[in-house]
Amino acid sequence: MLSKNRIKEVTALHNKKFRNLENVFIVEGEKVVGDLLLSGWKVLTIFATPDYINRNRLSGEISCEVCTEDEMSKITALTTASPVLAVVEMPPTDVEVNMQSGLKLVLDNVKDPGNFGALCRIADWFGIDEIICSNDSVDCFNPKVVQSSMGSLFHLKVVYKDLTELFRDNLAQNKLPVYGTLMDGENIFTAELSQSGFIVLGNESNGISLEVEKYITKALTIPIFSNAKNGLPDSLNVSVAAGIVCAQFRK
Amino acid sequence: MLSKNRIKEVTALHNKKFRNLENVFIVEGEKVVGDLLLSGWKVLTIFATPDYINRNRLSGEISCEVCTEDEMSKITALTTASPVLAVVEMPPTDVEVNMQSGLKLVLDNVKDPGNFGALCRIADWFGIDEIICSNDSVDCFNPKVVQSSMGSLFHLKVVYKDLTELFRDNLAQNKLPVYGTLMDGENIFTAELSQSGFIVLGNESNGISLEVEKYITKALTIPIFSNAKNGLPDSLNVSVAAGIVCAQFRK
Repeated sequence: MLSKNRIKEVTALHNKKFRNLENVFIVEGEKVVGDLLLSGWKVLTIFATPDYINRNRLSGEISCEVCTEDEMSKITALTTASPVLAVVEMPPTDVEVNMQSGLKLVLDNVKDPGNFGALCRIADWFGIDEIICSNDSVDCFNPKVVQSSMGSLFHLKVVYKDLTELFRDNLAQNKLPVYGTLMDGENIFTAELSQSGFIVLGNESNGISLEVEKYITKALTIPIFSNAKNGLPDSLNVSVAAGIVCAQFRK
Repeated sequence: MLSKNRIKEVTALHNKKFRNLENVFIVEGEKVVGDLLLSGWKVLTIFATPDYINRNRLSGEISCEVCTEDEMSKITALTTASPVLAVVEMPPTDVEVNMQSGLKLVLDNVKDPGNFGALCRIADWFGIDEIICSNDSVDCFNPKVVQSSMGSLFHLKVVYKDLTELFRDNLAQNKLPVYGTLMDGENIFTAELSQSGFIVLGNESNGISLEVEKYITKALTIPIFSNAKNGLPDSLNVSVAAGIVCAQFRK
């Protein structure tokens, strides 16, 4: 049986402040925990129903707490509790960016956890190993990000960094191209795209910030094909636009 | 001042049952209401703060109720109330599909309002005028769909229809191609794509249903470029996949 204190300890991890204090985060759902267990990320504790434990052979190194469904519903960050919740050690996010080669997504103040999760799936799908986030972007260990990344988070290196610093370093070093979608960029379908560089994605409401826009060396545009006679479409969702852009880099 | 009854009448429209009973739905937010007013859709009543009314010249044909911010927060379906909420007549969704030509999105049990909204923006952006939804798909007049479509809903024709019936009609008539992304389809980046046809999108968890899959005449695949050594990415979000597919049809 879970003590009140134990429940409090786990639910505190719904909150960024306590995740950072303890250096751990939570992962829920059979599919996502399944991917986690394959990933090599360090799992500290698993809370699970007897049924889940019977169906899955868990490593002896992971401490396991058997819970009733009712207890699971007390610790979950989801609307409907899953039969398993893992407490996982956070990998460091202040690590070095590979400034020599490779494609990288750069998130300039992306706020929506669902978008961040979708961006993880895009990066994973298109073989982009690094996501570099401005310090004001949503926390990648937010339970909604983890959930909506569908396990792709565990295949990626996520770095939080001042973006001005990142792009200054880039100018001082290898000068990888910096791509970003702007209103008046080159047509993405005909532009020449390299296999190394930064792909900058902006905030859901305000797009790419002026400070970051300065560093874009190749502005791209997804052309509009709208037939609407009563107003043009406003924009594409940031993860949809990222999917279209990343596909063009790899096709 | 809004009476309790009036508040009840508006909040009832958060619910599909009452929307269908009254044949009206609600639209909120300055940007989205702005697009609505340009669209030609029939606006019945606008609830707005004095400040909004001063800043916007509204047609004399629309009945307008002046509200305090507190009253706006009582009728909103959003987390934070906007200064304006419009009650709008629903256009019919049991209309004929154009079976002769044009690209159409077909939603096979898409459930998430945010995805539906993102799909409206994609259709609008890429000049796809029709969205045909299975009867079990989310209601396009759901406040979250309206909100996340960012005004694109007002540029589209949305039809709810039994999809088996739709595709049987298609077989009996013009036989437009039916596209869908499946695991073992043709590479979307090299496949020949026509400018008329149906693009089928599946449910968030289960993909395209078996009954609908039978009617796909050209299966497509977005190839995976993942580098992950510890498991392949599961899938792309349905709206991200749709964005990549629609872009390939238009590029």
